[in-house]
Amino acid sequence: MKSFNSHLEERILEKNSNLCVGLDIAVESFPGVDPDLDFLKAHAKKVIDATGELAVAYKPNLGFFERWGSKGFEWLEETLDYIGNEHILVADAKRGDIGNTAKQYAKSVFDYFGFDAVTVNPYMGSDAIRPFISQPEKGAFILCRTSNPSAGELQDQETPSGLLYENVAQCAVQLNENDNVGLVIGATVPQEIQHIRELAPDLPFLLPGIGAQGGDLEKSMRYGNSNGIALINISRGICFAGDMSENAIRKAAENYLNQIRKFSNEF
Amino acid sequence: MKSFNSHLEERILEKNSNLCVGLDIAVESFPGVDPDLDFLKAHAKKVIDATGELAVAYKPNLGFFERWGSKGFEWLEETLDYIGNEHILVADAKRGDIGNTAKQYAKSVFDYFGFDAVTVNPYMGSDAIRPFISQPEKGAFILCRTSNPSAGELQDQETPSGLLYENVAQCAVQLNENDNVGLVIGATVPQEIQHIRELAPDLPFLLPGIGAQGGDLEKSMRYGNSNGIALINISRGICFAGDMSENAIRKAAENYLNQIRKFSNEF
Repeated sequence: MKSFNSHLEERILEKNSNLCVGLDIAVESFPGVDPDLDFLKAHAKKVIDATGELAVAYKPNLGFFERWGSKGFEWLEETLDYIGNEHILVADAKRGDIGNTAKQYAKSVFDYFGFDAVTVNPYMGSDAIRPFISQPEKGAFILCRTSNPSAGELQDQETPSGLLYENVAQCAVQLNENDNVGLVIGATVPQEIQHIRELAPDLPFLLPGIGAQGGDLEKSMRYGNSNGIALINISRGICFAGDMSENAIRKAAENYLNQIRKFSNEF
Repeated sequence: MKSFNSHLEERILEKNSNLCVGLDIAVESFPGVDPDLDFLKAHAKKVIDATGELAVAYKPNLGFFERWGSKGFEWLEETLDYIGNEHILVADAKRGDIGNTAKQYAKSVFDYFGFDAVTVNPYMGSDAIRPFISQPEKGAFILCRTSNPSAGELQDQETPSGLLYENVAQCAVQLNENDNVGLVIGATVPQEIQHIRELAPDLPFLLPGIGAQGGDLEKSMRYGNSNGIALINISRGICFAGDMSENAIRKAAENYLNQIRKFSNEF
């Protein structure tokens, strides 16, 4: 069985698409409406119908499902069934706990839900990451330098071996024995993408923050998509595009994919 | 309505108990048995029956429930109903995400599940924490210096303003405007508990790591339980004590609580 990183790269090249669609479907994204869970489920299916041929991966963020408790996890199960087997499935879960618990989380996202990869948090060190990378065909994207305004409070702290996020990138390279470790870096901080690419030349980068968060798609592709590939995540910019019709969502995804392909050929 | 930290302290004093029982009920904890979910549910009820009068708080770790998908979240809902309203409920979730997502996680743990507090991860900075501390009656315990072997890889990094975990402690003090912020520190690192108590004199500390992880109960109480109080979490050491009968579980909890009360009176 192929390692996760090889499989991801192969699928991106086959489909000529670095586009990952983030499924962050919240009540708050429908102003003036008071949507129930069935409404949100229908919208999620609409997004998948509109983008299935364009996206190489989907990234449901578990927070948006957990918010509905057990019914929300049923929705996540239905959503993954609906997507099927042709896409890379990334659980945006940002989990991080002691080894004993991390094993349970790994069973949840990989064995129970069937995701191919998961986002994980490095604050507790490598113990908290290893249970997610013990199977080569399953991958983990480690939070490195994130896209949110307060990201730098800890991540940019200077340490004797460089900035904190640089330590994380170096640690990720060391943990990549099974060719299944990647990094999460915000598309909002392109200089950091460029810098981290030097530290981790071969790792895949998951780059969120394009669209609602104002990230830079051109630089994300320029700096991120080299030896290691870039998986460009767009959530709100696709899921809630225009009048939120299937057509508007497809057009938004096509527009982003066209830009990605253009930049992919240029660099 | 009382702030979370006041409420927690009041309940600890009323009940003369700093004992928090961690509900980490896993298949792997029953060697030689192949337990199904109903078996685990029955065991969780047994733990609650045995410890209800002794514990001031329960701390279900969400990983152990998520491992069963939507059925696991139904189990969590049933478990919280079974515990009722007389205990402090801490969601050990270690969540941390951008503000937009953190809001969804806060809705999950507080509004949907009805927890009183949650554990959160500081790697993404204060943005990722604020949505959990906007309601004074709901609290957040921020991971500071954790109990696992690799905890120090990032947390002990030197920065211009002290070790990384010291930065987190100082940040937590600043975030405590609503008297609802606490810290997670491993009972396995008592010197750090003592040191962090100096940095954050008034914050409650959630101290896991007694029992299976080998933490030091005496020093946890000595250094942790002063102005700000210590909530002593024990999971495996109680849930799987002796022959795992209700009696064995109760005896283990009584034994821990007697030690806690002894140290509480000494210091």
